[in-house]
Order: sequence, then C-alpha cells, then structure tokens
Amino acid sequence: MDPLREGETVVLRRREGRTLLVELRPGPQAIEGQGVLDLGPQIGALPGATVRWAGAEYVLLRPTLADLLGQLRRRAQIVTPKDAMYLLYLAGVGPGSRVAESGAGSGALTTVLAHAVGPTGRVYSYDRRADFLDVARRNVARSGLADRVEFRERDVAREGLDETELDSVLLDLPEPWEVVPRALGAIRPGGAIAAYVPTYNQLERTVLAFRAARLEEVQSVELLERALHVGEGGTRPEFEMLGHTGFLASGRRVVGPW
Amino acid sequence: MDPLREGETVVLRRREGRTLLVELRPGPQAIEGQGVLDLGPQIGALPGATVRWAGAEYVLLRPTLADLLGQLRRRAQIVTPKDAMYLLYLAGVGPGSRVAESGAGSGALTTVLAHAVGPTGRVYSYDRRADFLDVARRNVARSGLADRVEFRERDVAREGLDETELDSVLLDLPEPWEVVPRALGAIRPGGAIAAYVPTYNQLERTVLAFRAARLEEVQSVELLERALHVGEGGTRPEFEMLGHTGFLASGRRVVGPW
Amino acid sequence: MDPLREGETVVLRRREGRTLLVELRPGPQAIEGQGVLDLGPQIGALPGATVRWAGAEYVLLRPTLADLLGQLRRRAQIVTPKDAMYLLYLAGVGPGSRVAESGAGSGALTTVLAHAVGPTGRVYSYDRRADFLDVARRNVARSGLADRVEFRERDVAREGLDETELDSVLLDLPEPWEVVPRALGAIRPGGAIAAYVPTYNQLERTVLAFRAARLEEVQSVELLERALHVGEGGTRPEFEMLGHTGFLASGRRVVGPW
Amino acid sequence: MDPLREGETVVLRRREGRTLLVELRPGPQAIEGQGVLDLGPQIGALPGATVRWAGAEYVLLRPTLADLLGQLRRRAQIVTPKDAMYLLYLAGVGPGSRVAESGAGSGALTTVLAHAVGPTGRVYSYDRRADFLDVARRNVARSGLADRVEFRERDVAREGLDETELDSVLLDLPEPWEVVPRALGAIRPGGAIAAYVPTYNQLERTVLAFRAARLEEVQSVELLERALHVGEGGTRPEFEMLGHTGFLASGRRVVGPW
Repeated sequence: MDPLREGETVVLRRREGRTLLVELRPGPQAIEGQGVLDLGPQIGALPGATVRWAGAEYVLLRPTLADLLGQLRRRAQIVTPKDAMYLLYLAGVGPGSRVAESGAGSGALTTVLAHAVGPTGRVYSYDRRADFLDVARRNVARSGLADRVEFRERDVAREGLDETELDSVLLDLPEPWEVVPRALGAIRPGGAIAAYVPTYNQLERTVLAFRAARLEEVQSVELLERALHVGEGGTRPEFEMLGHTGFLASGRRVVGPW
Repeated sequence: MDPLREGETVVLRRREGRTLLVELRPGPQAIEGQGVLDLGPQIGALPGATVRWAGAEYVLLRPTLADLLGQLRRRAQIVTPKDAMYLLYLAGVGPGSRVAESGAGSGALTTVLAHAVGPTGRVYSYDRRADFLDVARRNVARSGLADRVEFRERDVAREGLDETELDSVLLDLPEPWEVVPRALGAIRPGGAIAAYVPTYNQLERTVLAFRAARLEEVQSVELLERALHVGEGGTRPEFEMLGHTGFLASGRRVVGPW
Repeated sequence: MDPLREGETVVLRRREGRTLLVELRPGPQAIEGQGVLDLGPQIGALPGATVRWAGAEYVLLRPTLADLLGQLRRRAQIVTPKDAMYLLYLAGVGPGSRVAESGAGSGALTTVLAHAVGPTGRVYSYDRRADFLDVARRNVARSGLADRVEFRERDVAREGLDETELDSVLLDLPEPWEVVPRALGAIRPGGAIAAYVPTYNQLERTVLAFRAARLEEVQSVELLERALHVGEGGTRPEFEMLGHTGFLASGRRVVGPW
Repeated sequence: MDPLREGETVVLRRREGRTLLVELRPGPQAIEGQGVLDLGPQIGALPGATVRWAGAEYVLLRPTLADLLGQLRRRAQIVTPKDAMYLLYLAGVGPGSRVAESGAGSGALTTVLAHAVGPTGRVYSYDRRADFLDVARRNVARSGLADRVEFRERDVAREGLDETELDSVLLDLPEPWEVVPRALGAIRPGGAIAAYVPTYNQLERTVLAFRAARLEEVQSVELLERALHVGEGGTRPEFEMLGHTGFLASGRRVVGPW
C-alpha cells in the first residue's frame, strides 16, 4: 500500500458522514462544510490514516470510482454507474485504451473512462459548448485524472475527430446518428461505438445509423437497477426505484474482406 | 495501433460468423470448426488484417472483454457482463488494483477482474476445488491474461487468504457470509467486499454478515437487462429476457478513529 | 344509459381537476374543497350532465373502479390496482363469486372484490381490529358497495371463518400462513386462496404453507408497473417508478380421488 | 354451491395433469387425449365430484377465468392475464358493463371481457376478418360464454360501430389510432378507451390520437411479470421471464361544459 503523495486527490471521510474529495497539499485549505484544515501532516501517511480536527474525526482514503462519481452526483444529473460500467463493456474500454467521447456533458462519463483506461490510456473528450467543457474539465481535475484526458471544443458531427485508430467512441449527445459517420472513421478495426440515449425514438435512429454504417454485433439494451432492503426476516426490493435512465446501443467496426 | 505479436491471443472472425480466440503462433494449428490454419504469416500484421484460407475469409482482431467472455459463455453458465461490470464498480476495482476472489468458478469473473486491473494489477483466485481451478486456469490462459492471475487451492472460510492490504475481495460462492471475517482482514482501509448470490436467503445472510463485520456503505442491488428490438417504425423490448441472474451486495472497510 | 338515481354514489369532476365521490341526494351538502352544493336537481339526469355552481363547472359521472380507488388512495396506502386486478385472476373472482378476505385493511381490496363480484356476489371481510373494520366499512360505503359486503371482527387464524363453499379466500395480512388451514376449510373444490405479502420471507412461508395444505397450481409472482412518457418524437419510460409493491401467491383446492 | 347443469362448460382435471374444458352432456364424447367418456351421470353432481374411467381419475370443477384462458393458451398466442386484467381496470369494465372490442383476435380478450361483464353485461366484438371471427366465436363458445357476446364482421376504422353509450371500447389491432374517432362516438360520457400495442411507435401514435380526441386521464403503462421460485431457504426470482408483452394506453371521455 503506497503512502499518500502530495498533490494526490484523497477522500476525507467522517463517520457515517459525507465523503469529500480534497487535494492533499500542505497549508490550510477550506473544505466544503468542514471549515479550514491543513492536511500537510498527512502527506506520506498510509490510506486509513486518521485526522482529528476541531472535535471531528476523519479518515483519509484513496478514492474509488464510486467516490469520484458520488462527488459529481451531488452537483449534476449524471450517467448512472450501472450504465457507465456497461458502456465500458459494450465499447470495449479497458486499461490502455484510447477512446473518444462526444459530448463531454458534466464530465461524469469522462471520469469513468479516464478511470478505466488507467495511466497508460487516453481519453479525448469533445463538446461544442465551451461552458460544458469547463464544467467537465473542472470535474475531471477534481478527480485527479486530468492528465489522462484531452478536451476539445468541437462540433463533431460537422468537423469530425482529430484521432484515428481509436479503440472506442462513446456518444452521449442528443443526436448520436449525426456523429456516426465521423466516429466510424476514427475507429480501428475491431473497435466499437456505443451510444447512450433517453428516448426510444433516439434509439431507433441511432441503431439504424449503426446498421447503415455497416457496424456489426449491433445491440440495444437497457438496464434496470433495483435496490434491495435487507432486514433480518424482512427482505424485499426497495419501494423506491428509478424507472428509466437511458437506452444503450453499440456496434463494432469489423472491416472484413467481404 | 500496435502490430499483433507472436504469442498474443487474437480474435479470428468470419463474416456474420463466430468469433474464435486463437493464439497467434507460427505453424499449423487446429482451429475449432475451421480446420487447420497456419497463422504464422500474420505475426506482425495490424489488427484488421485478413486471412483467406480454403475459401473462407477471416479478420484478425485484438480481443475485447466481450470476445473473451463470449468464448467462455459457449462453455459454461457464467456471471453476466452487466453483473460483472457492476461488481467492478461496487468493489472499487480498476487499473492497478490488487484483488482476490473466492471462488474461481469457471474463471469468468477472474477474466473480468484480470482485464480490469490491467498489466500492473494482480488477481488472486481461490477455490477449494482443484477441478474448478483447472477450468478457471485454462480459461484465463486462453484469454491471454494468465500472467496477472495467481490461483490458490484453498478453503478460504477456514484457512483465510495469504494477501493483505488488498483493494477488494469478491465473493462468488454459496456461503459468502462464512468468508467475510477472513476477507475483512485481507483488505486495506477503504477497500471493499462484494458478493454475488442467486437467492434472497443468501443475500440476507450476506448483508447481515457485512453489517456484523462493521462494513460501511453497505448496499444490495440487482440489475435487470432488457434487450430492445429495433425496427424502423417497429421498436419494442425483446420478448426474451433473463428474469434473474443474481443479487449483488457490497460494503466497504472504513476503520475510523470512532 | 340509466339516469342517475337518488342515493347513488356519483363522480363529480372538474375540468383537469380532482374527481370527487359524492352521494346524489337532495339538499345542500358540503363537498370536500368545493363548498356546499345541492345536487338534488341532478337526480334523474343522465351521466355526463353538467352542473354550474359558483363559477365552477362540473360533470356528473358514474364511478369506475378507478374512481373508487382513486378516492381511497388519497387517504391511505392501498393495494395497487395492478396487484388487485391480478389477485382477482389468481383467486378466480368474478361476477357472482362468494369470497372472503382477511384482513380488511383500509377496505381497498374489499372495494375491488365488491366491484368484481357484482350485485349477485358476496364479500365477507374479516379483521381482528375493530378500528380497521370501521375504516374499511366507511370506505366501502362511500363507494356505494356496502350492500355486497359483510364485515366481521374476528381473528381468523384462531377462530376461522363462518362461511363454507367459498369461491376464494384472499389473504392480506402479515402472517398469511397462520390462516391457511382455516381458509382451506372454507373453500369449495376448485376454489382458490391468494395472498399478498411485501417480503420474500413472508412469501416463502406462505408458499410452503400452501404446499403443506396440498393446494395445487401454486404460483408466486410479482408485477412491476412502468409508466411511459409519450411525447411526439420523444417517447420513453417515465423516470419515476414504484420499485416494489408486494408478492402475489396463489393455490387451488382440488380434492381428487387420489 | 349449485349442482352442475346439463350444457354447462366444466373442467375435467386429472391429478397433476392437464385441465380440460368439456361440455357436460349425456352420451359418450371424445375428450382430447383421454379417449371417449360419458359424463351424463355427472349432470346434477356438485363441483368436486369425481369420475373414474378406464383406470384414470378425474375431478369435475366449474371453470375459473384461468381455466378458460389456459385452454386458449395452448392454441394461440394470447393477451397475457396480467395485461387483460389491467385493461379491465383501465377501461372501467365490470359486472353489467356494455363493451366493444376491435378486433376479436383469437377471442382471448373477448373471453376475459365476457367473464368480467357477467350475465347482465354485453360484449360486441368486431373484426374485419371472417376467419378471425370464426376462431374467436368458437373459443368463446367453448368457454360457455357465447350468450354474452355478439360478433360483427366489420372494418371499424372505416365503418364505425353500431352501438352507442358503451361503457368501454378496447382496441387490440395494429393501428388503434385509426379507430379512435369512431370509438369516441360509441362511448358514453365517463366511458373509456383502452388499447394494447406491442411497439413504442404504435404507443406514441395511439396516445397522440387519444389526446387529439380530447380524451382525459390519458395514461400509458407496461406491466412486467416476474415469477418467483420458492424453495425452503432458496427463494429467488425465476430465471425465465417474458421480457415484453405489450404497452397499455387508456383515456376517458369526459365531455364537460368547458
């Protein structure tokens, strides 16, 4: 277990309380809702180290992806983890992957991608709106993953992507079908395109565009997440549930000699 | 895009046909259902290279996780990709993670873990049955991920794990609650335990064990996957659906000063 | 279409507004949230007749089951219509049926049963709590179905039912398994028992009791209701959804010569 | 409990075996898969009476709606009971109702409607295909409900319905939106239209037609039915599940003075 390094993003956690992401650096810093703390003495400590400050007690941890998204979720409506994780699967994203996304949104999917590709991978995040890119850039930086991501202000449907031979392109924008031809040209043989859309009308147009682009292994799914309430002798599905998030569609570029 | 290397596991794909995993090596080898091929000339080719042999045409691709699991799925009932991907999330597994699983089963979850941790991570796979370990070892080798995984024949409930400071322990065995105390001792502060069980009864006992072990952020969910049939002007959910796979439960070790 | 009769329960409906159940009788009566109205002049009018009063406009309609339950739903957490309707099916309830329920709850299922059996059927509603029976009795009366229902204050698990040769017994209480032996004796050959329970633990015990009682055609299901949002070119499942209501279990008494 | 009458449709049931619908009449009759039986001696017997014939043992029962539909289900793909029951609710059908359906299909929904309206109600079943009407008529007769149903060969979209002041119209045909204007004119104030369609595209057009016709209380839902496997200490949802049947949409005619 490596000691916590200066500049690293760490989780500051209170008992039964909120999980806060902070940068580990010397000198006093204002921590949302907790007052001003100096985390300098914790540089070099091991994860699990504790801090007592002004009567409160904290643990310092390395953040998981859930910590990073939890932070984002308090600020914006973001892609749910179940959908984001399955998009990784459908798009064939893993350690070392080079992937693009259009658009950047609030940076939530960007964060998931940057986490999944690891330090040897690369994420290219396109959005035509500068304000969205700003939010996404800030959120990715807060997650400590900024060095894996390049943001580009661009209308991909009209101007295309800079990259070629990408492993995957993820489409999270209102009209994914407009981007499919451009995305196709940026993907390596065997690479995949995956889209995330809220309505069935968008799903239909997207999948028809995938077929028109001669993508193979085209599939469309939705995931329903049902939480369970566990009590001794009283276990049941929870009453609250999110009835819909979005539809996922994916296809793969397999250019054969046929 | 790196050229295909000797010894690498590659996908051999026919038009609209099956996807086969083969080792890229010189000399003739028997390929399931396709006769005998010599893939030697393709060493050093780029992914997307094509092979014509005995009237058939193939494309060579680098495998995605979906290719690896697709291969396994033809042989055994395995954890579904939606569940496996969400377990990664719940257990906080990513590039560089050190994780253990108990048991190894057919090696499907092992494959997902080995893929997700990347070349810098490590997977320790325990099973008390030697025959299961053999199957899992063979399947992981076939996926080209053998160098990231160590298999150990062991009854974890009674004998524990060798590792400490793990990022995650995944439990995919009939009585996960029996393993929880041992798993707890093998996890670093901030690390997580996640379990996958088919019945409500197992879920209840597992979650109660998580609470007894003072895990925090305990949650229980199930994911329902519904495929969609897309036709122009005729889009609807598919009639066929898997009604149940398993319940996922997770918790996190947060040892605070409280 | 029969004219509205004095004493009949009618729906008073405002444009885009609430649906109110009122008794059609001469003389001024206070209508919840609408002030005081005299519906006397509407006796003998046809459904669809309109009333203008103090600047507001109303339509008078014969209530559907949905109107009756909608009224109840504003007051208590009741069995959902999807579950109630399917219970009718599982329990074999229809026009002319003689059915019992234990317990009465708030009278919602009683209302559904009384509606389904029609004027020639009969509902026997048991509850051991006098206060529940009062609420149920009042709600059934408000629905204009009081003459089809007999309420009995009784602990059915200990004291049994008065009736024999019933078509169905419905169990909507915390421990249905305790009532099964008594219910069995009250049912005609070919009749059914159906239960509605919130937890899987209750479901398991109930179904085991059904099997112990040698009921046949035993089944257990749950129904998930997903609303859809329809917009021109923007149709999708609604985001809000009730994740769980209850499990339904049923079995049939078939006493053969075997 | 009334004795079984000559001419009545009864259930003939073997232990753990199939449920057969037969007409109770004197003289030998061929019973599907059971050889030739003479049920004459059972006229006047009570439900639950047993018959021994050629070494086999049978019980005679009065059929429930489930028995009637079970018989149909062996012959055709029919509306599922969960959907049919909820359509009754959405369309406001109950004992004494006068309802129409378009089209007749295989007569399954006709059977559910005829059962629900009871002996004092009336079902008008329209279909433009004579062969469908024949099948439906035969199936309804087999259920013993023929005297409650009138079948009419008619293209309702073009020629409308004969009836007025109906309580409900049910639409179970590929283009329900074409029938909505005609259906509207056949419904009493407060009556409802309900449709059952398989695709999102049909749902969208149907609901838009409901709104264009100024129906109120318009709603769209789907019901997912999940069976449960109950074992002592091993209870879980069943693995098999029907992923989709159809979408239900309904609206109500409320002609106010507005």
